[in-house]
Amino acid sequence: MKRQLISSRGNQHFKHLKKLNESPRYRHEVQQTILDGIHLIESYAERFGSPDSVALIQGSDIDKIAPYLNEDTQVLEFPAGLFSEIAPVISPTGILASINIPHLETPENQNCILLLEDIQDPGNLGSILRSASASGVDLVYLSDHCADIWSPKVLRGGQGAHFYLPCIENAVFSDITKAFKGKIFATELTGKSVFKENLKGPVAFIFGNEGNGLQSETIGLAYDSIHIPMEKGIESLNVSAAVSICLYEKYRQENSNV
Amino acid sequence: MKRQLISSRGNQHFKHLKKLNESPRYRHEVQQTILDGIHLIESYAERFGSPDSVALIQGSDIDKIAPYLNEDTQVLEFPAGLFSEIAPVISPTGILASINIPHLETPENQNCILLLEDIQDPGNLGSILRSASASGVDLVYLSDHCADIWSPKVLRGGQGAHFYLPCIENAVFSDITKAFKGKIFATELTGKSVFKENLKGPVAFIFGNEGNGLQSETIGLAYDSIHIPMEKGIESLNVSAAVSICLYEKYRQENSNV
Repeated sequence: MKRQLISSRGNQHFKHLKKLNESPRYRHEVQQTILDGIHLIESYAERFGSPDSVALIQGSDIDKIAPYLNEDTQVLEFPAGLFSEIAPVISPTGILASINIPHLETPENQNCILLLEDIQDPGNLGSILRSASASGVDLVYLSDHCADIWSPKVLRGGQGAHFYLPCIENAVFSDITKAFKGKIFATELTGKSVFKENLKGPVAFIFGNEGNGLQSETIGLAYDSIHIPMEKGIESLNVSAAVSICLYEKYRQENSNV
Repeated sequence: MKRQLISSRGNQHFKHLKKLNESPRYRHEVQQTILDGIHLIESYAERFGSPDSVALIQGSDIDKIAPYLNEDTQVLEFPAGLFSEIAPVISPTGILASINIPHLETPENQNCILLLEDIQDPGNLGSILRSASASGVDLVYLSDHCADIWSPKVLRGGQGAHFYLPCIENAVFSDITKAFKGKIFATELTGKSVFKENLKGPVAFIFGNEGNGLQSETIGLAYDSIHIPMEKGIESLNVSAAVSICLYEKYRQENSNV
């Protein structure tokens, strides 16, 4: 590894990391993003090898991250004040990595796919990707008003899901549903209970925005509508909870031995 | 209703609302909290009647909230700048209400109870309470390091669950598990699959902190351990997703007609 101490805001590495942290547009332009914390870096390294560069607070113990680096990895050290300007806002861990955004292959076998319309909270989106990957979803499509899946907050919420689960942004749902060979379920309050549906075999689930639910045109793309039964004055669940329940109901139906 | 325009930071109502928004300690001292937005106010009013007072941005349309008020409700109007100082930080809706914290009776019939150890993210906690209420949980116990359930962020995440679901804070878990007549499940990675357990009849679920999971002493209080099966490099789910999956698996087993 190559170590370098950076103490100026004019430094190109500083500017690059700051923009990666702050700007969705820049991330997509350069096709890079930032991983916050050792867990994500470890998860990335297991799948794709060492990151291009890591950034640390000056004086940090480099040993804990050394296993995930190779001789070409750039190690950039920053004084704490400067580091805080490039770190994602919530609970900065003192270790970042910059990586190329991975492009996972679209799988041919699509037994479960997920269509997300305008999911805007990064924490929700990260948690959804995590449950999707864990329950064996093959592919996720996101409409153009979803949060940026490569933002540090969504990555943190995803806890490594991004490195296993192919995701396609800016998707046009009508094209996808037309091509999909399987049942397509929209989720809305007037739907049938998800626990009464046969979810075995190829299924697409469509979930909508946190506040507004699905647009009616999107519901029109589905084979049927489902909902999760609710008691005691509750009208809806958090979208990440709802997605997780539906995906695991499919998982349960298909894995009687789990 | 009685309307009053407030334009000074020295005003007692302004000071009271600001402290309710910011200080868990003050909320517990005065046993009041703040509801942010029309949906929560509506949900509260349906259950307990009109709130003591509502706060609006000066010039707001009062008609949309009028159905939930009565002749004794104080309507406090603030210039936008002052209002922003008393409003919870994320997406302030321009309408707040201050209410007495309701105390719901502990139900005698406890078919499903939930024990939450050190759940610290307000969004997660709110979402958990929402899923718990929706799936028919009778009672929730929270350890003393959980987020304050009466904070505006947890209330927003709960979407009204707080008004239906009895919650007991600062609970000592060993007392509760000793007294509980039913199966007690701790959730940990080495547990059995939740989908293989018989969850019918009285069950207590114990869930742990977002980062650290359950303390080993807490696991020792349980009858058995369960986990949710996971694929593709994911080691754990978001705690709110995990809680929702487990609660709805019990719900599904007990409601074959849903």
